[in-house]
Amino acid sequence: MRTADELRGVFDAYLATLPLAPELGRLEEALRYALESGGKRIRPILCLAVADATRGTVERALPAAAALELVHTFSLVHDDLPALDDDAERRGRPSTHAAFGDGVAILAGDALLVEAFRLALSYDDPAIARELADATVGMIGGQYRDITGDDIDLEEVERLKTGRLFAAAVGLGLHSAGVPNAEQGPWRAFGDELGLLFQVVDDILDEDGFAARLGVEGARRLADEAAVRARERLDGLFTDTSVLRELVDGLAVRTA
Amino acid sequence: MRTADELRGVFDAYLATLPLAPELGRLEEALRYALESGGKRIRPILCLAVADATRGTVERALPAAAALELVHTFSLVHDDLPALDDDAERRGRPSTHAAFGDGVAILAGDALLVEAFRLALSYDDPAIARELADATVGMIGGQYRDITGDDIDLEEVERLKTGRLFAAAVGLGLHSAGVPNAEQGPWRAFGDELGLLFQVVDDILDEDGFAARLGVEGARRLADEAAVRARERLDGLFTDTSVLRELVDGLAVRTA
Repeated sequence: MRTADELRGVFDAYLATLPLAPELGRLEEALRYALESGGKRIRPILCLAVADATRGTVERALPAAAALELVHTFSLVHDDLPALDDDAERRGRPSTHAAFGDGVAILAGDALLVEAFRLALSYDDPAIARELADATVGMIGGQYRDITGDDIDLEEVERLKTGRLFAAAVGLGLHSAGVPNAEQGPWRAFGDELGLLFQVVDDILDEDGFAARLGVEGARRLADEAAVRARERLDGLFTDTSVLRELVDGLAVRTA
Repeated sequence: MRTADELRGVFDAYLATLPLAPELGRLEEALRYALESGGKRIRPILCLAVADATRGTVERALPAAAALELVHTFSLVHDDLPALDDDAERRGRPSTHAAFGDGVAILAGDALLVEAFRLALSYDDPAIARELADATVGMIGGQYRDITGDDIDLEEVERLKTGRLFAAAVGLGLHSAGVPNAEQGPWRAFGDELGLLFQVVDDILDEDGFAARLGVEGARRLADEAAVRARERLDGLFTDTSVLRELVDGLAVRTA
């Protein structure tokens, strides 16, 4: 079993040398810029850790892990645009549209999304690309509700915006490892708790979402409960889930 | 064999009742608006006609045909944005961003692209989604070159922007019909000529691209030569290609 830090190192090395389609030409620079913005890589690490803890291998799960990170990055590039969340900075440097212009950022986001599907389609099993597509359409629906205030149910929006891709990270790890659908339930239940934990802590740090509605203490309690349930789910899996436990512990106490 | 008009009727009926992901909520309105803008449906009709002329059925090719039209529509919605081509009108009515706002148009384009992959992934054969992804990444690369003037080689840009999706229309029709790769070459050669014919006539009507470079007469000659070669390709297929010939004839003389 590799540690979370080791998985991150393996993933970053894979991503840095990942070939992109030559047809993109110099648009590739904008994609690389967006991908190299130093994110936490939580979704790919989760995917790799699930593959490693089941019957799979980290190496076989790498394209699926990269597909998740590309979809996540696509959503950041488009959401940061002036017409959406209008964020000129992302992780302490200019966001993609601020660095390359709005038009190039739109095309870069589009290309990241398609490259994600090309990675997911490198597997013979179409279940991987199908789950990625379903999660992505959920994410987009969540972002739409967020910007329009339509059907505003905070938990539903967060479940779509964040939860769906976390769930897919677990699902893609399982599929890449060849775990049959009938055995996936307990792993997926763990992923749902981890996604909730991530989102609530995110809201506490950003002072919005769950923190705005429940207050910081109420949100902290919700996060702690999700962490407890996530650890209980891991206890019930009867295999070495030490890296996944490390992820839960890290998310529960993260401060950035 | 159904005529091109009959195929268009079948396709429009399928598209009008195509279920979209419920997670999209009211964003679906913007997708429907973009899809119902009364395009010529050339790519889906080409896909259906190829399936019908080989060993496939129109019905089995419908999801693939719709996936092509959704990718085409995604590209129009994003390309019309102020940050790209800045077109407030499309086929005589407000373009999607003019009707719904830039933010919703960005998300609607994203959702059209993902829905296209969901349709392509409804087949067990991943070759369909793979070919769609490869063509789409080529289209995006073409649009990038077009807006930046990067590596400006007109034929290369047009081959990417238009030719790749025309080629995929033929390819998806063949894959949906189960035509083995080894037998696809002559059909694909036909598709390449048809894509060139479409683009050159488009440029003559818009007075840009090939028409700007070669003059109207020179472009007209190029279009006529492509039409001749396309018909010769059909002659070599030794099956009933009357609908495909109808498409060639229609594209060669179209005025809108």
